[in-house]
Amino acid sequence: MTTVLSSVYQDLVERLEEISRLGGIMSTLHWDQEVIMPAGAADSRAHQLSTLSGLIHDKSTDPKLGELLDLLQKEDPSAFNAVEWCNIREAKRDYDMQTRVPKKLVQEITELSSRGHHIWVEARKENRFTDFVPTLKRFIELKKEWAQYVFPDKTAYDANIDIFERGTTMAEITPIFEQLKAELVPLIKAIREKNQQPDTSFTQGKFPIEKQEALGRRISQDMGFSFDQGRMDVSVHPFCGGGHATDVRITTRYRDDNFIESLYAVIHETGHGLYEQGRMAESRDLPASEASTMGIHESQSLFWERMIAQSRGFCTHYLETFRSVFPENFKDVTVDALYAAINVSEPSFIRVEADEVTYPMHVILRYEIETGLFDGSIAVEDLPQIWNDKMLNYLGVQPPTDTQGVLQDVHWSGGMFGYFPSYTLGALYACQFYNTMIRELPDTEKNIAAGNFAPIKNWLNKKIHRQGKLYTPAELVKRVTGEPLNPGNFIDYLQIKYRALYQLD
Amino acid sequence: MTTVLSSVYQDLVERLEEISRLGGIMSTLHWDQEVIMPAGAADSRAHQLSTLSGLIHDKSTDPKLGELLDLLQKEDPSAFNAVEWCNIREAKRDYDMQTRVPKKLVQEITELSSRGHHIWVEARKENRFTDFVPTLKRFIELKKEWAQYVFPDKTAYDANIDIFERGTTMAEITPIFEQLKAELVPLIKAIREKNQQPDTSFTQGKFPIEKQEALGRRISQDMGFSFDQGRMDVSVHPFCGGGHATDVRITTRYRDDNFIESLYAVIHETGHGLYEQGRMAESRDLPASEASTMGIHESQSLFWERMIAQSRGFCTHYLETFRSVFPENFKDVTVDALYAAINVSEPSFIRVEADEVTYPMHVILRYEIETGLFDGSIAVEDLPQIWNDKMLNYLGVQPPTDTQGVLQDVHWSGGMFGYFPSYTLGALYACQFYNTMIRELPDTEKNIAAGNFAPIKNWLNKKIHRQGKLYTPAELVKRVTGEPLNPGNFIDYLQIKYRALYQLD
Repeated sequence: MTTVLSSVYQDLVERLEEISRLGGIMSTLHWDQEVIMPAGAADSRAHQLSTLSGLIHDKSTDPKLGELLDLLQKEDPSAFNAVEWCNIREAKRDYDMQTRVPKKLVQEITELSSRGHHIWVEARKENRFTDFVPTLKRFIELKKEWAQYVFPDKTAYDANIDIFERGTTMAEITPIFEQLKAELVPLIKAIREKNQQPDTSFTQGKFPIEKQEALGRRISQDMGFSFDQGRMDVSVHPFCGGGHATDVRITTRYRDDNFIESLYAVIHETGHGLYEQGRMAESRDLPASEASTMGIHESQSLFWERMIAQSRGFCTHYLETFRSVFPENFKDVTVDALYAAINVSEPSFIRVEADEVTYPMHVILRYEIETGLFDGSIAVEDLPQIWNDKMLNYLGVQPPTDTQGVLQDVHWSGGMFGYFPSYTLGALYACQFYNTMIRELPDTEKNIAAGNFAPIKNWLNKKIHRQGKLYTPAELVKRVTGEPLNPGNFIDYLQIKYRALYQLD
Repeated sequence: MTTVLSSVYQDLVERLEEISRLGGIMSTLHWDQEVIMPAGAADSRAHQLSTLSGLIHDKSTDPKLGELLDLLQKEDPSAFNAVEWCNIREAKRDYDMQTRVPKKLVQEITELSSRGHHIWVEARKENRFTDFVPTLKRFIELKKEWAQYVFPDKTAYDANIDIFERGTTMAEITPIFEQLKAELVPLIKAIREKNQQPDTSFTQGKFPIEKQEALGRRISQDMGFSFDQGRMDVSVHPFCGGGHATDVRITTRYRDDNFIESLYAVIHETGHGLYEQGRMAESRDLPASEASTMGIHESQSLFWERMIAQSRGFCTHYLETFRSVFPENFKDVTVDALYAAINVSEPSFIRVEADEVTYPMHVILRYEIETGLFDGSIAVEDLPQIWNDKMLNYLGVQPPTDTQGVLQDVHWSGGMFGYFPSYTLGALYACQFYNTMIRELPDTEKNIAAGNFAPIKNWLNKKIHRQGKLYTPAELVKRVTGEPLNPGNFIDYLQIKYRALYQLD
């Protein structure tokens, strides 16, 4: 870089670091609100957050930032290294996204998010979908309008996907989801018709919370989570937050009659946490080091939750630990019994409670509804009927109420369309990454059974975590696994695993 | 107010609220750092705090804010109510303090604070006062220079006092401290020579931390602390923090061999916390509602810690509670024994461990040294000798090392001169407030013995907490008690209480 160029880039870096640090503060305050804050502080905290987000918005849309970015983008990319160029590219994208939308539209979306959330909470509580209809209709209009400003070259739904899963479009997702549907609907049906669920009685009982907490902490640590640069606490909904790669805060929740749910929430959030703790040391407060996308983030939590912690090797390693912590419950439990119990597959109404076989159908159902809402082929008023019909077709069950059906997810109440596919793309990435890992590290299964997770974590650190935003998910998958995203990996994994578990033909 | 004036004032209010909210965020992050934050996040947090304090500085020194304040200050005060006028006055004072000092001087003070702290930590650890000498010398120069910019009409030391104890000067403090010295040095000597300390063995033993925690929480709640708008946690040094009047966070620390220290830290910090929770509802995010001064804040913590919790009535009420929580230790303890044990007076080297009789002498020693350093009659190099001589004269003991002597306090390492007097002024205010209270609420002692603290808290809420920054400490004392600050209240209290406790002629 020339001296002038270098000083312009340095100016950009300082501005981006400032924005990133304010974002980290925002995130710490959100964590505090969910975990620590006294209830009576809700109003004052809302004011603080709104002041801070206003400041972040001012900094992110400062015309001087725009000028710097224009200057830098005119340069030959070869004047920068890959990380520097990525910082410029990402900052420019963010700046454009924030400045292209008229203020009036931004305000209406913000207001509707806030109002919409309350309306949804009430509608869900009262099981009255019709109360939620006007909000949903307006949101679809607004998000279509928004899409035209932000990504005029994309269809409105593709533009919405792009915020969560960069560069991925309906053209790629639809055939993948069709293939999943063709394979999973019959598999789910076959499992249901087999009508032979394993014994899970030992996962119920009395599990003192302090023992669960110690167990979760130990397994999180075994996975490689650094408690010197992170914490684990309790919140109503488990999440991974915190204000920096050196301050990663995961949460879980406890029930004293079941420890599996809480433990697997810890493992899932630890997967997210390892991604954050594993960011490239260089540019840590700059966009290039940030997680690639929602889907890649989810691939990291699902990698640990499913590919590792729902494996037989994991059961082999931890059965004795479980037995020593909960001797009563695990007296006569074998590895096979544990493995079967943590891999129960059974259709249910609620997405967040679904298992790895049925979960994709919850997502595909929402994807089909969202694309229909955006292309006008589905009317908002018809959603409850369409929802229930699809549930019956895909999972063989129908929710008795809209509260357990079309009203169950928070996403639409905040105008988040195009988000759901990331969950299942994450599962596909996770499986494809795992298949590559066992080729490159053939001892992986042995390592899991020995509780030796360091090689796994190091591989993910190197291949994924440290790559930040250098690549789109499609590019990253190609680089890591040598092939484009191929749902065959995930389908084969499920077919082999669940045909064996449920002894199908 | 005219419409124009009202809109100018509204503009001021919005700017001040924004600054106040950012300050609340800063304070929440400080609490987080002391209580919750993983150690590995120290660097990233330092960056976040520095970014945020830079923003607060920009907002606080915005020339537009200065213009607004100049406009408003030219108006007739009668156009505003007392709270509004106070907001304008306080904002103007703060703006002037922040803008009058050249940037270069501010930077040098900031840098020396940060460097000075490290130098002091090392010097204290190594017991090498000479290492700390250059820092201390430079700080005195800088703070003299600073004083000339900020309060050109005051002497340099009075200017430094003024940040902590508004409107109070050496002219008032010196005769008060002389009077205290004249009375307390003989009293301390008499107690020492009596050589008859009460039995405190029952305050030592095994006190499980969860029991201490529950006890502290209960007493804090009895005092009126709202846990719906506050928290209690653990930190290395007890403090009262949090980001808002509706989010007040007190801390303590626990030792399992002594519960009195921790409990009285809870009571002390609850006193501070009640002040914050008791702020006027109007203008809550504006300067008028903020605590008057350091000394008045300390008067509230000491009011509860000493005037209430070290009284016989308090012992009467809580002895049975203590006995039920720690039955082994309190088996044969009487009210008199408890009262004697929590009121032990004995000279010690360390200020923060001192009792209510000896504490003022630690403060007076520092005050005399600081005034000498500022008027040039004391040289920094001579401090260890002067310190030790004064310790011997005032308390009859001499610290064996400078670590336990002149190097013990953090204040000078950050350039905080003029702060120490607030501690003892706080004790004097507390006593004078108490004497007024028992005149106005003659049932106070009965109420304490019955654990009925609501009338006490309500009186403090009304007379002090809700007065915010409307008055200087001198004005507030006069308004509340009907007379100027009179050390006779405190002297009589100590003489009567300790002559009885130690059966001095």
